[in-house]
Order: sequence, then C-alpha cells, then structure tokens
Amino acid sequence: MSNLTSLVEPQFSPHTLNKFATLMAAGNGYLGLRACHEEAYTEQTRGMYLAGFYHRASATETTELVNLPDVLQMRIELDGEIFTLLSGTMLYYRRELDFAKGELRRQVTWLAPNGKRYQIDCQRFLSAARHSLLCSRISITPLDGDALVTISTGIDATQTNSGRQHLDETSVRVFDQLYLQGCYRTLDGSNEALISSFCAVPSQACTSFSAKNRRLTQHCTANVTQGSPLVLVKTNWITSSLAADYQPETAGEQALTNLMACVAQGYDQLLAESEQAWHNWWLRSRIKVDSQNGQDQRTLDFALYHLFAMTPTHSERCSIAAKGLTGEGYKGHIFWDTEVFLLPFHLMTQPEIARQLLSYRWHNLPGAQAKAKKNDWQGALFPWESAWSGEEETPEFAAINIRTGLRQKVASALAEHHLVADIAWAVDAYFQATGDETFMRQRGTTLLMETARFWISRAVEVNGRLELHDVIGPDEYTEHVDNNAYTNYLAYHNVECALRYQQRFAVPDREFVESANDFLQRLWLPPVNEQQLIPQDDTFFSKPSIDLAKYKAQQGTQAILLDYSRAEVNEMQILKQADVVMLTYMLPWLFTPGQIAANLDYYEPRTIHDSSLSKAIHGVVAARCGRVEQAYQFWQQASRIDLGDEPHSCDDGIHAAATGAIWLGAVQGFIGLTVEQGELHLNPRLPAAWRSVSLPFNWQGTKVQLTLTPHQLSMTTDTDQPLTLWLGQKRLSIRRAQSLSLTDFFTVESGSGTMKEAES
Amino acid sequence: MSNLTSLVEPQFSPHTLNKFATLMAAGNGYLGLRACHEEAYTEQTRGMYLAGFYHRASATETTELVNLPDVLQMRIELDGEIFTLLSGTMLYYRRELDFAKGELRRQVTWLAPNGKRYQIDCQRFLSAARHSLLCSRISITPLDGDALVTISTGIDATQTNSGRQHLDETSVRVFDQLYLQGCYRTLDGSNEALISSFCAVPSQACTSFSAKNRRLTQHCTANVTQGSPLVLVKTNWITSSLAADYQPETAGEQALTNLMACVAQGYDQLLAESEQAWHNWWLRSRIKVDSQNGQDQRTLDFALYHLFAMTPTHSERCSIAAKGLTGEGYKGHIFWDTEVFLLPFHLMTQPEIARQLLSYRWHNLPGAQAKAKKNDWQGALFPWESAWSGEEETPEFAAINIRTGLRQKVASALAEHHLVADIAWAVDAYFQATGDETFMRQRGTTLLMETARFWISRAVEVNGRLELHDVIGPDEYTEHVDNNAYTNYLAYHNVECALRYQQRFAVPDREFVESANDFLQRLWLPPVNEQQLIPQDDTFFSKPSIDLAKYKAQQGTQAILLDYSRAEVNEMQILKQADVVMLTYMLPWLFTPGQIAANLDYYEPRTIHDSSLSKAIHGVVAARCGRVEQAYQFWQQASRIDLGDEPHSCDDGIHAAATGAIWLGAVQGFIGLTVEQGELHLNPRLPAAWRSVSLPFNWQGTKVQLTLTPHQLSMTTDTDQPLTLWLGQKRLSIRRAQSLSLTDFFTVESGSGTMKEAES
Repeated sequence: MSNLTSLVEPQFSPHTLNKFATLMAAGNGYLGLRACHEEAYTEQTRGMYLAGFYHRASATETTELVNLPDVLQMRIELDGEIFTLLSGTMLYYRRELDFAKGELRRQVTWLAPNGKRYQIDCQRFLSAARHSLLCSRISITPLDGDALVTISTGIDATQTNSGRQHLDETSVRVFDQLYLQGCYRTLDGSNEALISSFCAVPSQACTSFSAKNRRLTQHCTANVTQGSPLVLVKTNWITSSLAADYQPETAGEQALTNLMACVAQGYDQLLAESEQAWHNWWLRSRIKVDSQNGQDQRTLDFALYHLFAMTPTHSERCSIAAKGLTGEGYKGHIFWDTEVFLLPFHLMTQPEIARQLLSYRWHNLPGAQAKAKKNDWQGALFPWESAWSGEEETPEFAAINIRTGLRQKVASALAEHHLVADIAWAVDAYFQATGDETFMRQRGTTLLMETARFWISRAVEVNGRLELHDVIGPDEYTEHVDNNAYTNYLAYHNVECALRYQQRFAVPDREFVESANDFLQRLWLPPVNEQQLIPQDDTFFSKPSIDLAKYKAQQGTQAILLDYSRAEVNEMQILKQADVVMLTYMLPWLFTPGQIAANLDYYEPRTIHDSSLSKAIHGVVAARCGRVEQAYQFWQQASRIDLGDEPHSCDDGIHAAATGAIWLGAVQGFIGLTVEQGELHLNPRLPAAWRSVSLPFNWQGTKVQLTLTPHQLSMTTDTDQPLTLWLGQKRLSIRRAQSLSLTDFFTVESGSGTMKEAES
Repeated sequence: MSNLTSLVEPQFSPHTLNKFATLMAAGNGYLGLRACHEEAYTEQTRGMYLAGFYHRASATETTELVNLPDVLQMRIELDGEIFTLLSGTMLYYRRELDFAKGELRRQVTWLAPNGKRYQIDCQRFLSAARHSLLCSRISITPLDGDALVTISTGIDATQTNSGRQHLDETSVRVFDQLYLQGCYRTLDGSNEALISSFCAVPSQACTSFSAKNRRLTQHCTANVTQGSPLVLVKTNWITSSLAADYQPETAGEQALTNLMACVAQGYDQLLAESEQAWHNWWLRSRIKVDSQNGQDQRTLDFALYHLFAMTPTHSERCSIAAKGLTGEGYKGHIFWDTEVFLLPFHLMTQPEIARQLLSYRWHNLPGAQAKAKKNDWQGALFPWESAWSGEEETPEFAAINIRTGLRQKVASALAEHHLVADIAWAVDAYFQATGDETFMRQRGTTLLMETARFWISRAVEVNGRLELHDVIGPDEYTEHVDNNAYTNYLAYHNVECALRYQQRFAVPDREFVESANDFLQRLWLPPVNEQQLIPQDDTFFSKPSIDLAKYKAQQGTQAILLDYSRAEVNEMQILKQADVVMLTYMLPWLFTPGQIAANLDYYEPRTIHDSSLSKAIHGVVAARCGRVEQAYQFWQQASRIDLGDEPHSCDDGIHAAATGAIWLGAVQGFIGLTVEQGELHLNPRLPAAWRSVSLPFNWQGTKVQLTLTPHQLSMTTDTDQPLTLWLGQKRLSIRRAQSLSLTDFFTVESGSGTMKEAES
C-alpha cells in the first residue's frame, strides 16, 4: 500500500531514546524488537521479546517476558573513533518507520571527532512472512578519504530485564566460520531460546570470532574506499522450545538450515516477501481517513501497525501482553485489555485471531479453576495477570513502600474479578460476529459456563437478594466495594449468556440451569436513579467530591497519590477511569441514550483518566451520545498517550489497549459500526474534520468495504449474498455494491457534520 | 607522606575507560571499587566487590565475586543536557589517583552542546580507616550563566557480572526522607549485602525518591548561580552477612547508625582519618628510590598502593584474588599467586597479614582434604582456584570451543598440584621470617603435614624410586608430564619441612616420620646434568625447539595458540613461564650461581612470557646472577604489564601477582634482601639508574629502615637488640643505626654499579 504513512523521528535526542525505541518497535506477533540503535547508549533499554517466553528470575520475583540476547547491537569504529551520536556532529539524521513494509530505516551523516565525515545507513525488519526472521543491513560510506572500519556484532547474552537474568548460556558455536548460534536455557530449565545469526561481510573484510562473558561476537575489519559503501547484512533466525515441534536434538541444525535458506535470498527479497504479507494485512485492516488533521491518518496507521506487531497469530497458547512485545512494562503480562480493547478489532478483520485469543483462555481454564477453588469458589476465576501457564501472575505484594518499608497486598488479583465477565462478554461478541457454532460447542460454551459458575458461587445472599461484595471495578481508585455496577451488570450478562448458549450448544445441565436462573432472578443490579444515574457501587454517592482540575492536568501520572493516600482516595468520588461509563459502553442496549449521557456527564468530571484505558472509551460513549466533537477531542487525546510529546510516557512499551482503543474510537465511535444481538448496526457520526473514512471489515464471513462521507455511505461486499445491517433505525439489505445518502436516514445538525437519527 | 607520587590520566578516551577503571581502582582490602566515572558509558564496566562475597549464578556457571549494586553512578543533567564526555567539548580534563590519600580526583571543564560551560569536580575514596565507608563528592559550577542542575543517584542493583545476576533485591528503603538502604540476598539465600547511602544536597535543592526496576534513586534538582558550586556529598556504608557479628534483624539499624556517624563528620574529616591510615601504611611499606628513570618511583608506589587495596586484613576467611578487588577476571578466585608472589611482601612489612593469608588456607583444609580423598589421595590437595568455601572452583570444563562445540577438561584443577607445595613453602617462609611458634603449633605444622601427606600418597614407585607423574608445573604450556622439576623439588621441600616442623611442634607421629623419610630418600629429584641444566621434566629435552621471536614480540597474548594447537605446543620446548627458573628462584640455596645462570640462559629463550608471573621472576633470578641491567629490563617490562600502553591489558582487573612481583624485583632482586635458613641476607645489586633506595622492613619483630646507595648501606632499627644479617658472605650484627661502605664487602665491577662478592 503505497499511500501508507510512516513515523518519522526527525532528530536524535538522548532524552527520547526509549520513547522512540517503543514507538518504532518491530513486531510480527511472534517476536518484538525495540527500535534501539545499532550503537549502544546508556540511556537506552534494548530489548527483544518472544511471545510466551516467560520466566521467573527468583522466588521473590514475578514471572516476566524474558529480554532475549541481543543480535542487533553493533560496535562500530571508524578510523578508531567509536561511533556514537553523542560525539562529533550529526550533519544529517532521519529515522523512519515505514508502516507499509514494517521496515525501520535510519540515515546519518556523521562528522566524527577526527574531522572526517561518514554516511551511515541502517535498515531492519522483522519478517511478517517468516516469524523467526530478523534482518538488518548497515551501510557505511567514508566521505572524506578512505577509512578503516571495524564492526563487532554477534549474539550478546549480557542482556537482562533491569538486571534480572533469566537465561543460562548453554552453548555458543560458530559453524563453518560463518554462522553463529547460541542456545540459552531459562534458569529453571523449562525452556530454551535458540538464536542463529549470519553476518554477510564484503570479501575485503577480515573476520574473526570470539566468545567471552556471554558474548558471541564476530569482528569484522575492512579498509573502505572513500565514497564506496561497506555493506553488512545480518540475518537472524530466532526460535524457542515453546514451539510444539521443537526437538532439542535437531533444533540447532534445523535453525541453521532455515537461516541458510534466508541468507540465500538476501535482504531485498526477504523484505519484499515480508512487505507482501504486510500488504495483505493492510488490505484487510486499514482505515483510510481524509481529515483536516493530517495526524489522524498517521494515528490510525500507527495503531494498526502495532495491532499487527503485538498479535501472536502463530499459537493459541499466547495472547497479547499489555505492552505487546515492545517493552517490559507490566512484565509482559496479559490483562482484560486483550478481550475488551483488542479483540473487537480482530472480530471485524480476522475473526480467527479473536477465536485464538479466546482459545488462550480456554487452554488456561485449569489455572482459573484452581484459583477459584483456592478461594472456595466454583468455576473459573481467571488470573488478573496471566502469562504462559494461566496461573495468577499478579505479585502478591506491591513494591515496597520505600518510606514505611511495608508492602501492600495487591488488591487486583484478590478482588478485581470483572475480567471473568469481560472474557465471557468477548465470547458472546465472538459468536455474534461470526456465528461460529463449532467454537461454541468445543470451547466457547465451556468458557461461559465456567465463568458463570464462578459468579454464581461468588454471590452472597443479603435479605433474599444476591450481591457481589468486596470487588474492584475497572476504576482501581475505588477498592473493596459492594455491588460495583460494572461488575454486577457484566456478571449478569455472563450468566445470562452462559444459560442461553448452554441451552443451545451443550448437553442439558439442569442443576446449572436452575442455579443460573436463580442468580439472574435475584442478582442485585443497581438501578438507574431519579437523576438517571447508576451508582458506581453501594457507597459511592455518599462519598465527598473534590476539584480534580489539578490532577486532570497531569493525567496518566497518578499525581493524586502524591497528595492523598490510597485509602483517602478510596473514600472520595475520585475515579481512575469511569466504571459506569465503561458499563454503558459494554452493554449499551441496557440503557437509554439519556441515561448514558447523564452518567457520562456525572462521572467524567470525577475521573482523572489516570488509566490509559479511560479516554478512548469516553470518546466512544460521547460519540454515541451524539457529542461528536467532544468524542473527537477524547479520541485525539487518547492517541497522544503514546504519540504525544511526553518524552517518557511509553518508555517501557506501547499501550497496547490504547492502540485498540484508537480503532474502537474510529470504528465504534465515529463510523458507528457495532454489533448488537447478532446484528450489524451503523450509526455514522464523523467528526467535522473528517471528509471521508473507509474501512474493510469482515462480517459473518463476508468481506465488506465501507466508505463514509458526511452525507454518503458506500458499501461493497465480496459475495452475492445480501448483507443485512441497521442504518440508524432502518434495517437494510445490501448486495455487492451500494451507495446511500445518509440524509435519508439521519438528520444533519446545522453547523456540524453530526447527525441525529431521523424519526423512525 | 607528602612526596608520594600519583597516577595521572591526562586525557579521557573511550578506548581506555576500563584500563584506567582498573589502574585507578579504590580498595581497602574489604571493598574494591573500579574507577568508573560518575556518568555512565556503554564501554565501561562498572564494578564494586566485597572480599569473600562470592556466589554461583547457576549450576552451569562458576562461583564468582559478585558485582555489587552501584552507588557511585550519577545521572547529571545540566540545563537539560545529559552530562557525558562523549558529547560537547572537553576544555579541561584531569584525573589523578593520589597514592598518599587513596583519593581519586577528577576535574573537568565541559562545554556542553548547548554552548554553556560547566566546571565539574569529583572526588572519592574508600576509607582506609573504616572499611565499610565509601565517600564521594561532586561539585558542579556553571560558568556561563545560572544553571538548572538535576542529579539522580542512589543504589543501582541492575549491575551484573557480564549479565549474570547474583542478587535478589529483598528490601529498599528511604529513612527519614534522607537515608537510602538496600538489602540484597544472593540467589541461593546464603548471604546478603546491605548498602546504606546518604546524599547531602544543598538546601536550595528539591529532592525526591523513587524505587523501580532494582534502582533506588534520589533525584535532586537545583537552580545554581553562575560561579557558585553545587556540592553533593554522598556517604555510603557497605556491609555484608559475611561479618561474623552480622545479625539480620539489627544489621539495617546498625548500618544506619554507622552511616549517620560518618555523615556527621563530613567528607574532609573522613578523608583525613583515612589519610592517616594510609600514612601509617606507607611508613611501614614504602620503598623510596632515587632513579634516573622517574617512572620507577611511581611504579613502586603504584604496586604498593594496590598491595594495600587488595589485601583483606579484616578476616582470615578471605585471601587475595588474582585481580584483587579491581575486576572480574579469574572470577575473583585465589591462586598460588597469593602465597608465592604476594605473601613475601607482607612477611617483610606486616607478618601478621602473612599469617592471616596462611590461616585462610588452614580454614579451608577440609575442602582440600576432600579434594584429595575424592581423587584417592591422602592429606590436603588445595584447589587450584579457591573462593570462600575452599572447595575447588576451577570450572571442570573450559569455555566451549566455538568451532568444534567441544569443551576441554580444565587440566589445572586435575594436575597443577604444585600449589600444594607452594603453600607449604610459604608456611616455612613465614616461620623463618617471624619465628612464630604459636602459629606453627596451632596451624602451620598441620598445613605442612597435610600437604606432605598428599605428596607422599601421590608419588608412584618406579623401579624402587618415587616419581610424580602426570603433573603440570607453573608452565601451563607443558601439560601432563612426569617428574616436573619444579613440582618434584617443591614437593621434596614440602615433605622435608613437614618432617622438620613436625618433630619440633607436633606430637610424635612415627608413621608420618617413617613415610616422610621414605619419600625424601626415594623421591626422584631430576639432577643437574653436564651442561649444568635441570630438565623441566622427563621428556622436555627430547622435544624440538622453534624460534619464538614472533610470539615473544606479542607476549601476554597467547598468540602461539593461534598458530599451534595446545597439543602441538605441548610437544615442543615452548614455555609460558619458565619452571626451572622459578625453581631456582624459590629454592636458591639448592643450586650454585653457575647452575642458576645456565638454566636462565637455556630456558629464557624458550619462554614466551605469556604469563604475567614470568618476567619479574626472571628479573630477580637475573639479578641474583649478577646481571643487574638485564634484571632491570625484566623489572621494567614486568611493571608495564599493567602500567604499559596496551589499552586493554588490565580491563578485567589488576595483575595482583605482578604488583607483588614489582616489590619482589626491587627487594629480592636489586636490594637483594632475602631470608635463607632463618637468616637475613643482603646482597645489593642496584641498577645503574638507581642512585639510592630505601625501605622499611620488619624482621623477627624488629623494625628496620634500610638505605642503599651504590656504595653505602645505612640501617636503623627500633630496638637495642642487635640485628644479625649476612652482607654478602659476612655475618654482621647491627644495633640501632649503622652505616657501612659496601666496598668493604663487595668488589665493584668497573663501569657499573654492579658488585661481586668480595672473596671471603
């Protein structure tokens, strides 16, 4: 796709090394590679991660995604000067992440301290076509006289996760004086990573190898003529014992064979192959927008680039970490973010990936059942933080309070149980979007029933009604409350779905049906009050409010906790993110537009948006309330969580859910494409700045291309089967290609592109 | 001592960061601290080590001296510019290690990329008076306008040994918003290191704290007026559970109390206290030389500085590692270097330290006995590489051969057994120098008898005579030989000493006496042949020689192994270091001057000197042969092992034995002060360049100050007891102060300062 945008880093700064290492990270769902420079910087956190490759460094530490040995680093000496952009003068610098190819390119003209200029061009990509393949190319051209160039690169296993080492170096080899291979086993002996590497050097170069201090290194020295580039191509093949077909005895040889096959093709051909895979992805996924704000297209391309990079399509034993594969934040753990913020995108583009993400939970049912049982509940209590095994990975205690020396118990794993219902919500959404009965028979219904059983057992009876006590909703600033609205409504939805799908897809289970019916009849669902408001929990409305302007101005930083203790925050109407707004986002059909708007208006001023999950959802809900410009503001602000100017906001990785939320904002908010009760609904509400938007999507096996302008809707499908959807309040049937005037369906508000539903 | 030299690094270079980090390292025998800069550099290996604090990172790794959390690093921002000498322009740079105080000082005037100049002065010392105390001071002066200065520093536990992590961060605290404390436990749970730190900041500074990713950090920001320095003083107190009186429950509080007491005194007073301790050391130890080569005095001061820094005087459970406490080379293990190259210095200056070093071996007898038993021998077979436990720490296999994938068994631990006799040799030397009967009764005789029992059991009978088969002498280029001369003679000396001291200090043991006598009567001691030569082993003389000029030119690099395999080298007359020369150094009284010279002449051309232990011993032997200028050349070359121009020769630590050998060369070689049969011998042979030399020493409890010129000897003692010594062939008695003309004792060779003994 030639008109894709790119992300450009126009200047080098030691202050933003980690921000751009995250933003420009490479990924193919199997591997993730931070966009670190070839040359090392002390301020730069280098990182390469393999989906599912977790390890716990010691009994007192948390399982985390292992930072693998580094294959990209190069120590470059130019006429004896160690190349670093901190020294000498940068005469030219440009780094660009090409979203179309997934290639990162850097061009530097460096005036070294010795007074000579050198042109250094770097390229790299993680193959979208072969997930073990990482290629890089560096070209060095002396501009002022010939130069003696020395490059040392190899496999560097001194990498750690902030000092935590996970790997034993079990073997390092050089085969045929050409191919490097290192085998690294986790300290607990459970897994190994195998890295094979070949560095093609020009024939005039002199090469030697060394293995010392966990570094297997190739040293290459060459005399380079002025104006003629020295080109090195490094091809790396990275595998691990996580692969089902991994045989320790033959894996090394197999990897070398694969590496050699890649080497034979060369950088450009391998890149072309990868670009083709990217091309197919963009065809399936890309949202094209014609906006007065040029950034909007880049925002969408950026989000989708990362949605590809983070998604492990190769294995249903992996899911998407909160930071994708771009950094060590949240230790590479998997949260509810995946099901609620990321799965909807896949539902609409590649539903088989959504199925795979749900299968990850299905495989991990034993851990969830064990956690429920351990706490004397039934069914499946999925872990708040999940890694490979599906056991609870949330640390039992938070980091030590350095002032008191105390460690607080982490409440999320104990009480933030809504994720159980979120997973069930995603199962329902999957079936609605796909009608995949096989999945429901084999896995989906089990997931629904086991999660439902958890809620049924977790409820407590109070004067005949069932309540959910001592929970935490998505708003983590309000802990250990009773009848959190989000949780209760979602739990109800969970059990309701379980009952419904059970009857359709599972063997009859009278006991379950009875207990589920009882639960649904007696569960307390906090009702909408006279002010149209839903109380966040039993005591929320009784708590005082304060002016949050100061903290909203610093949102995302948790600055409130510098002025108030957590316990104090808990006793005020202060929200990290708004539970009830989130509830109206998740189950919109339960509430009237007026109720949704009233709750948005009440809760938003009380919400700091310290969570990256907050803004975009507010945007979707605002859009649904017809407040398109407010929604657009929320959406733009949400896109700045990673892309904004704050130099350290994403040092430890991308906000994966926020990239999904950028898509949600555009699709569910502005385009207004949602699924309710198994039917497609379209309620377009484009921001005034958007002249048109188009997106491809997948609906029940039909591929659809949709284009919207403020007044026009065009749709094409790839089959002759009619596509049924609701446009506003009208049900339509579309076949092949159709263009509609939106004014037939909506009234346009004067002075804006916003529409209101025409009276039906 | 005001006239002590200093070591000056006149310029900053990224190429020599590690060389100078080693050369300028701080140490007090308890702690060692590499001279890394406050600001980090990727090329720089930071390191702080605590004597005896070893750990094995995993079952496949080797026990190593743990690189402790870093307290010296500072991230400095000056008006938003991150301070690094790679960027901007260095207008002035000077770094100096002050041997008199043990203080490292750096002065930098930095023109930042922003065009403003800043003066940055750094100082630090490890206290010679309180071994847990490390102080640093930094002063930053903006020279062009006021400046906003931000400094982040604390306790950084992301440090590793080349990626191997040994420590769990078990607790990090900030007490009273002032004092940082981190507690770190080895992964095996056996030990903990406790680091307490206080950073005094000026009152105008704004301070905050953070604890994240194994970094406990204090952030300090201040507006600094042009011309007025911002001064930060950081005081650190470092202890560990190795201390016999360490109580985990109270250690933290005790450490804070000690830290606060230091803080109350302030940098200057603490430095003065440390300087006083250094002063006392120099009074006891310093060799003053008036040489035409100005470097000679610095060489000696450098060697003695490091002899202090590396010696753990606080505990007889510690000994001196091959790299002292300056780096990770040889994993911080202890070799025969200690007894043979370092102990003689202590014998002559502080014999109680020599006793302590021997006690280290005595404490570790169980490990040595176990190793002997495991191999079906008796007595004590000390480990070739020793750490805390006294078990064999030599890795069983060498590093993998990256081309073949094979790992060779490390031969040293299997066959390099001469260290057993070396330890016995040192016990004998200790008693000769001190007459310490208590030590011999309690520990020394046991060491001698257990080592003797090993040799007795190890000998094999061949046609009635006893031989020592399959050994490696100090020359590691000749492996698995029979009757290595060095080993056989030293083993004989070992058993002979054991027999002698046993009869004097131990209960009669007829069985031992009989077996020892039998061993002494029947052990094969390769005799001097007709050419006056001693064969290095049974087959040595039958092997071919080659021209070694090429390899001698690259000595210290093991370049021979690039052209020949180890097996090939083994079958030629190629020596890493010369065994027979070493033998004549160790037991000179067994050989005539002519024999010693003949062997030096034969073996030296066959010796590459790839071992840092080689040159200096050749120097002493050459001096004893009256070849003073050759000896002086050897000595100067030996001093360049660390101090020479090669930028990476000591990256991973000082050559501890080589510093001892600098002392040996001066004292045993040029001054000619040795002990034989319990008597002091003086045979001066000053190099022509030396106008005078003086040294203090300790002899049987008497303190002696000796001054030599080419023709004059002056001695003063601190008691009225007469001091008996041999000057050449004449036995003298000296009382209080005496001055002698050397020409009364020696004839001066014309044209040089060299003397020959006068006919007696």
